[in-house]
Amino acid sequence: MPASSNYRDALADPAIDAVLIASPTPLHAEMVEAAAASGKHIFCEKPLSLDPARADQAIAAVRKAQVKLQVGFHRRFDPDFRFIKDRIDDGSLGEVRFFRATCRDMTPPSLEYLRACGGIFADVTLHDFDVARWLVGEVEEVYAAGAALSDSQIAEVAGDVDNAIVALRFASGALGLIDNSRDSGYGYEASLEVMGSRSTLRIGPAAQRVTGVESLAAGARAWDIGTDFVARFADGYVGAVAAFVAAVASDSEPSPTGRDAVAAFALALAARESMETHRAVRLAAVTGTTVEA
Amino acid sequence: MPASSNYRDALADPAIDAVLIASPTPLHAEMVEAAAASGKHIFCEKPLSLDPARADQAIAAVRKAQVKLQVGFHRRFDPDFRFIKDRIDDGSLGEVRFFRATCRDMTPPSLEYLRACGGIFADVTLHDFDVARWLVGEVEEVYAAGAALSDSQIAEVAGDVDNAIVALRFASGALGLIDNSRDSGYGYEASLEVMGSRSTLRIGPAAQRVTGVESLAAGARAWDIGTDFVARFADGYVGAVAAFVAAVASDSEPSPTGRDAVAAFALALAARESMETHRAVRLAAVTGTTVEA
Amino acid sequence: MPASSNYRDALADPAIDAVLIASPTPLHAEMVEAAAASGKHIFCEKPLSLDPARADQAIAAVRKAQVKLQVGFHRRFDPDFRFIKDRIDDGSLGEVRFFRATCRDMTPPSLEYLRACGGIFADVTLHDFDVARWLVGEVEEVYAAGAALSDSQIAEVAGDVDNAIVALRFASGALGLIDNSRDSGYGYEASLEVMGSRSTLRIGPAAQRVTGVESLAAGARAWDIGTDFVARFADGYVGAVAAFVAAVASDSEPSPTGRDAVAAFALALAARESMETHRAVRLAAVTGTTVEA
Amino acid sequence: MPASSNYRDALADPAIDAVLIASPTPLHAEMVEAAAASGKHIFCEKPLSLDPARADQAIAAVRKAQVKLQVGFHRRFDPDFRFIKDRIDDGSLGEVRFFRATCRDMTPPSLEYLRACGGIFADVTLHDFDVARWLVGEVEEVYAAGAALSDSQIAEVAGDVDNAIVALRFASGALGLIDNSRDSGYGYEASLEVMGSRSTLRIGPAAQRVTGVESLAAGARAWDIGTDFVARFADGYVGAVAAFVAAVASDSEPSPTGRDAVAAFALALAARESMETHRAVRLAAVTGTTVEA
Repeated sequence: MPASSNYRDALADPAIDAVLIASPTPLHAEMVEAAAASGKHIFCEKPLSLDPARADQAIAAVRKAQVKLQVGFHRRFDPDFRFIKDRIDDGSLGEVRFFRATCRDMTPPSLEYLRACGGIFADVTLHDFDVARWLVGEVEEVYAAGAALSDSQIAEVAGDVDNAIVALRFASGALGLIDNSRDSGYGYEASLEVMGSRSTLRIGPAAQRVTGVESLAAGARAWDIGTDFVARFADGYVGAVAAFVAAVASDSEPSPTGRDAVAAFALALAARESMETHRAVRLAAVTGTTVEA
Repeated sequence: MPASSNYRDALADPAIDAVLIASPTPLHAEMVEAAAASGKHIFCEKPLSLDPARADQAIAAVRKAQVKLQVGFHRRFDPDFRFIKDRIDDGSLGEVRFFRATCRDMTPPSLEYLRACGGIFADVTLHDFDVARWLVGEVEEVYAAGAALSDSQIAEVAGDVDNAIVALRFASGALGLIDNSRDSGYGYEASLEVMGSRSTLRIGPAAQRVTGVESLAAGARAWDIGTDFVARFADGYVGAVAAFVAAVASDSEPSPTGRDAVAAFALALAARESMETHRAVRLAAVTGTTVEA
Repeated sequence: MPASSNYRDALADPAIDAVLIASPTPLHAEMVEAAAASGKHIFCEKPLSLDPARADQAIAAVRKAQVKLQVGFHRRFDPDFRFIKDRIDDGSLGEVRFFRATCRDMTPPSLEYLRACGGIFADVTLHDFDVARWLVGEVEEVYAAGAALSDSQIAEVAGDVDNAIVALRFASGALGLIDNSRDSGYGYEASLEVMGSRSTLRIGPAAQRVTGVESLAAGARAWDIGTDFVARFADGYVGAVAAFVAAVASDSEPSPTGRDAVAAFALALAARESMETHRAVRLAAVTGTTVEA
Repeated sequence: MPASSNYRDALADPAIDAVLIASPTPLHAEMVEAAAASGKHIFCEKPLSLDPARADQAIAAVRKAQVKLQVGFHRRFDPDFRFIKDRIDDGSLGEVRFFRATCRDMTPPSLEYLRACGGIFADVTLHDFDVARWLVGEVEEVYAAGAALSDSQIAEVAGDVDNAIVALRFASGALGLIDNSRDSGYGYEASLEVMGSRSTLRIGPAAQRVTGVESLAAGARAWDIGTDFVARFADGYVGAVAAFVAAVASDSEPSPTGRDAVAAFALALAARESMETHRAVRLAAVTGTTVEA
């Protein structure tokens, strides 16, 4: 799929120091390489490519051009997720023993979208994999299962599932669980729990930023839950770009890196393989380059 | 209003040690006196009488007969209310500075009931007055206001209000607020806050015992709120009777006493006077016997 | 108290269209008048003056100069408070029957500050009075009481109280309660409840924007509460200024107006009078100009 | 291990209709058989035996004696768990798509206990397996992993893990996740989520029955979490025995049955096998008798 030539004009503009790539996934690698060749710093939405070898090529191009590359894992910049990261880093949570992430969309996207997105593990779980690696470290073994429960066409036409579960064994010995749904019905949820040897922290289901107003109706108290990820992660999206700009301005290394994108994607591939084989998949067997000490 | 003679047969039964009086309010004093004369210990629903002098007579009869009398203020036996009482008594809350009670029915009772109940302050607020005295101590000054907002017949036919607010100044210097409604629409609520110099405790709006299940519907998280006081105070009703039985069995003094009922009723009368005069009413001016040091 | 002449230089600058006045209260009226005389639009922190006549003068100067004046009641721009306002305006709450506001500081300010601030009703309750008027309408009768409970010097040296309660009767028939504390101990709280004939809405005690992370410690679940109003109302402060800028830019009338500041201040004076006389104060008796139909 | 002969005297007493067996697990099967032989109805704590063949023998003895047998899965009688069961049964939850159960002890039991208990899947997860079967139906495939994270002696001396995760594929197509810990540190938690096509219900981490009082401390709101299963499931324990008594009295079939105990135990064995082999285990491969249509 050739990309529009328009963006190449922008890359030729010497007044531009850095670019944000938010195009469809199939264009990511090509655009990253073009931007790197033009000496532009790059913020690119995940994933770099649905083909790991292609992602490696793009990262190599970035390295060769000595430009900066940050990948759009916005949850790392959400105040609540960062609060937990800080408690891990300052030792107050202790050793992480258990990690649990839930990510659910309110309603499924179109079949057209589903056919092109690379599957639920690459499209949805990828964020949970990145958060898992960011908070707990590398994953050693993945087990996954899934089913198309809301609409049989999701399996038949798009070859995908709309509900998925993942079990993780981290290199540290910690355990993890992830559950995803394309069709929660009640709203968009991105909740999280990290249980440590000293304390346990939990982010709830409600996008508390949407509103803190409680409604007392007949027989019920209610809090609003947000209905999409844009509202839930408004702070995270802004924070991710702000961090990229700050890294460019101060000439420091941005994070998460292209390598983080590759590592999360390897987990998505492993999850798919596990779902198909009904076996746990060891990560070293998928790609040696993504497992760190 | 003469009471049915049936209960007198029961009072003559030597196998009966104690009686529970849950008849309509106008029968309370007469039945208390008859039970006392028969040497029965007495558990009587509040209030003892809508006429303070009549209540005093009944209490005098109880004293003369040397039987025990406990009045049915069941909130003192609710686990949540008692938890707060314990934190005050053990000093962990510190000096009480502010007290706030909310008591609301889901829908108004019949006009017939409203005409006979003695008014919102004697029928509803009385429980809040008792809790206020139990947790914080004697009240020095009462201001109250009210309005019939859900149904003008409540004012026109029953001569009452369906929403009321009360401001309290306690002898200790603490301040208090009470709000009542006959028509919350959303459920039965009996919530409470006590702010102390060391900590602040709060009982929430939901009758948490009804169910702790959270429901995630489109755009909302909800917890059930109970719809009546029977469900909310199931533990309290059982606890009140159990405490009475234990007091009779161990020959110790039951609590709350008839005197507590008279003191709470004096606050109800003061609230009504305040609502009518638009002035704060000092309690000493209502009845000297109910104000303690 | 003469104001620094520096700001007069700024007022002479023709490049400046509008000014924000956040100086100490005693300078507000003088600065408003100077800015109006210079043809600048004005955003002024509350209150306009501790002297109602002086505030009226300043408003007259603004009218004469035909500039815009917005007063800094930032709660009107908090997303949660506005959510409730919207539910009232769109009819989904129904007729308002009961209003309750709680505003508490975590620790008292200095005695020096307390001596100059105009008293708790003008300094703290003023915000609750403004919210009450904004959401429910004009107030017909005020009863208030207060006590210095955390530090007797607050009464002796500053002539003020640190805990206050207010009961309101609105012109619409609705009832209201406000409670304030200078010394909650646990954090800054600005909570709110509005009970309507169709639904009831409530803003909770936690500054939910600070963090939505739940911490599970031994025997407890906890959510963070903010410790100051800056964190709690960050959105409100920004929103208030943004609304002012938008009003200036579009040449529309800003809100809340100087008249709103005067009306809220009249309630503060009435509350003080009530606290001193132990009587409810009718607002018409305070100032005829602040009571609207 | 021969059981004390004392209980045999009780079994010989014709005045006794039914017995409750709450002895150590190794005595369960023997006692069930002795009680059945004496014609007593039986309430027996789970599991019937750590040896499935032995459990089958005991169930056969019960059938032969034509007495009733109820197994002690008390969660089925907890009001919150039952609330969810009712919403599934009445159709308001819709088709179950996802099930998640968390069960955590506050601190690990002794190594002596751990050595004898049959392992975490048989001792702890068994309750979650029973709830899963009760709410969602038979399980087709189990994946499990575990680690000894709080104390290496749990692995070395007791041959067990203290943290475990389980992924389930139900025969209906639904997916499930379970996480267990012997050492949460913060309290005892038994929470649950069931996501259906029409609604999603969730039981929270707090044993809300312990207390509904909220405590506002510096920078935090807190609710109490219970510290043990006795407090959390007080209603469940009473309810289970009451249901057994009612079944005996009305000569109806009690539930959960011995068969339910065997089915849950088969899941525990499958989980252990999965943890050891790093493969998902299909239930038909474990025991044909426990998989129903």
